[in-house]
Amino acid sequence: MDRDNTVYVGNKPVMNYVLAVVTQFSNGAEEVAIKARGKAICRAVDTAEIALNRFLQDVKKKEIITSTEEVETDAGRTNVSSIEIILTHRT
Amino acid sequence: MDRDNTVYVGNKPVMNYVLAVVTQFSNGAEEVAIKARGKAICRAVDTAEIALNRFLQDVKKKEIITSTEEVETDAGRTNVSSIEIILTHRT
Repeated sequence: MDRDNTVYVGNKPVMNYVLAVVTQFSNGAEEVAIKARGKAICRAVDTAEIALNRFLQDVKKKEIITSTEEVETDAGRTNVSSIEIILTHRT
Repeated sequence: MDRDNTVYVGNKPVMNYVLAVVTQFSNGAEEVAIKARGKAICRAVDTAEIALNRFLQDVKKKEIITSTEEVETDAGRTNVSSIEIILTHRT
């Protein structure tokens, strides 16, 4: 079992990401990390909440980490916030 | 000192909320909670990151909590994700 499963949340509908998370646990993942940057952060939180409340009864939030990343844009370097929500099986 | 200082993040520019957080610590708060719902969640994360990286050297993240709240709208009840980021003085 791969312990380093990550779902990157972007601009697609939230249920796409919920399905990705649920699928990874169905495939035997012990832990799934949901990552997002900038405006996608709220969708990452939605993804975790919907997955936990509606689909994954035996999974819980292990840790939530926020940080700041520097990205290159046409206008130069800028800072963007990011979030990582780690879900894990209840033991 | 009031230990229950909360900054609710909404649709205003992010620096308004950063200033509110910095002011509460300047006024002697031991702990400040940053709360937001829905699309304001990414702005709450920005608020915490900017406040910590640029203004508050002796403050750290204590805890990040996400949850689902039920709200009443014209179209009936709906669920909305929320976040609470708790900042506290380094000891």
